[in-house]
Amino acid sequence: MTDRTSAIDILVSEVGPRDGLQSVATIMSTEAKKAWIAAEAAAGVREIEVGSFVPARLLPQLADTADIVAFAKTIPDLTVAVLVPNARGAAAAIAAGADKITLPLSVSETHSLANLRRTHEQVIDEAVAIGKLVREAPEGRRPHFEGSLSTAFGCTLEGAIPDAQIARLAAALMDAGCDEVGLSDTTGYADPAAVKRLIKLVRGVVGDPALTGIHLHNTRGLGLANALAALDAGLTTLDASLGGIGGCPFAPGASGNIVTEDLVFMLEAMGLRTGIDIDRLLEVRAIVTAALPQEEMFGFLPDAKLPLGFAPATLLEAA
Amino acid sequence: MTDRTSAIDILVSEVGPRDGLQSVATIMSTEAKKAWIAAEAAAGVREIEVGSFVPARLLPQLADTADIVAFAKTIPDLTVAVLVPNARGAAAAIAAGADKITLPLSVSETHSLANLRRTHEQVIDEAVAIGKLVREAPEGRRPHFEGSLSTAFGCTLEGAIPDAQIARLAAALMDAGCDEVGLSDTTGYADPAAVKRLIKLVRGVVGDPALTGIHLHNTRGLGLANALAALDAGLTTLDASLGGIGGCPFAPGASGNIVTEDLVFMLEAMGLRTGIDIDRLLEVRAIVTAALPQEEMFGFLPDAKLPLGFAPATLLEAA
Repeated sequence: MTDRTSAIDILVSEVGPRDGLQSVATIMSTEAKKAWIAAEAAAGVREIEVGSFVPARLLPQLADTADIVAFAKTIPDLTVAVLVPNARGAAAAIAAGADKITLPLSVSETHSLANLRRTHEQVIDEAVAIGKLVREAPEGRRPHFEGSLSTAFGCTLEGAIPDAQIARLAAALMDAGCDEVGLSDTTGYADPAAVKRLIKLVRGVVGDPALTGIHLHNTRGLGLANALAALDAGLTTLDASLGGIGGCPFAPGASGNIVTEDLVFMLEAMGLRTGIDIDRLLEVRAIVTAALPQEEMFGFLPDAKLPLGFAPATLLEAA
Repeated sequence: MTDRTSAIDILVSEVGPRDGLQSVATIMSTEAKKAWIAAEAAAGVREIEVGSFVPARLLPQLADTADIVAFAKTIPDLTVAVLVPNARGAAAAIAAGADKITLPLSVSETHSLANLRRTHEQVIDEAVAIGKLVREAPEGRRPHFEGSLSTAFGCTLEGAIPDAQIARLAAALMDAGCDEVGLSDTTGYADPAAVKRLIKLVRGVVGDPALTGIHLHNTRGLGLANALAALDAGLTTLDASLGGIGGCPFAPGASGNIVTEDLVFMLEAMGLRTGIDIDRLLEVRAIVTAALPQEEMFGFLPDAKLPLGFAPATLLEAA
């Protein structure tokens, strides 16, 4: 059995129930979402982004987020994360009891207008308001507040974003009250050298403890190579999506989160403990495929299977 | 125009015409092979494994290798590489004028028996005989002789192979007269940590200059991450196959070389010059698809296209 309280080296944060489901047309039933989240937690996943507090008319797929948060909170030792586009969403997330809230800020202002319909200044204003809500939340209901720098590796509309602009926005998010910032390759433009460079740049602004995670896409096949670069640069939290479903529906041509199954395999093969039982993780795919029969599930490991005699770091540790 | 004599940082060695074609049932016409090789060389690829000197009854797909070598030798500044299973094949390769010959030696003896129908001792005997042929070849017809340590990261029949066995076989190949050894992840079992570890192990035996290249598969999706690890460990030659076609037909479950297009994109994005014009490389796919209409071509870049404003290292250099 997987012991979800044992030490891990790398936190794999599952974003499929949010990033995956917001990208597909089918609305997954609340029961199926709960089964998915419960099964992944039982496989040893310690952080799951379970939904987004956006108006239901914009993303009907995630309209049951409050219900899902309440359910996920009953699972021991699981960090329940949600996306919030603004202070109104953050208030709902805090009321629902989310452990972690993430506000996306597109460093490309063009993308910010398309995605959140807000200028940089407007998003920072929301961040300030959220920071205040978080500080004023009653002890024990105070979520970890992350600002996510999306389109950090370039924008399909603007191309490369100047370093100074990224640095300024990272600082502004921290000033607004974020506990940490994250990097997000929304458009799948990242490469391993850029990943290392941008981590160094942003850590230079916010300090190492305030940048520990990255959200990578596999649009151009470099997802796991970029994850490796992030590990080399000292990050310890990697977002991924079961079956690779999802991506950003507002960035034309961008698609495909990195695949949780393949990422966990890579990490465990490298001797890095994720706390996740790969065999049980692979079994979770059946829940998602049954609930989303029209959706393509990605990943190499499910077909190729584990190497003969494979010894995952997590189970070696537990033995 | 691509200047194929300019300096490069990393040598991308195209193995599709050998490793790709030996894995597919269709026999590609000699004319199509020549068009493929010529187009890839024109795109800036500087080394191509064009065939294999094996009996035509075993691999009828590669029966025209001598003809292909003679054609490829007419292309300026192209290293014409071939695979040879034994001394007889090496003699044919030298007669045909190949610039580089590679003898595979499966570090798993079980796989060696299945793949080459020879024990380790028998393969080393062939290596000794080839070393003699190479030394006795007339000046100017003396090919570079590489011994490739296949199944180096584990075997689908035996699992992990002991370090001592790999080290012993690497030394034996060098003693037999190899100019260098290469590592080959025949089964797609490699992970980035294993890549670094094995490079260090083998370089410790043969010396750094005698291990510069690696042949990686993408069976479990880790191909480019493993390539990145190999770069970090100091290797400068990476095998890849256009469209990712190929893999080892004798290892059950193993399939898929790393994709040349995606690899070149990663390297150029990282600022590493390959000498290859990505746009022209992508155009070569049409030749292969036309000649192998039933074969699936892989790769992310062909669909995702280059990032907006992408500046490849090679063209920056040329500008």
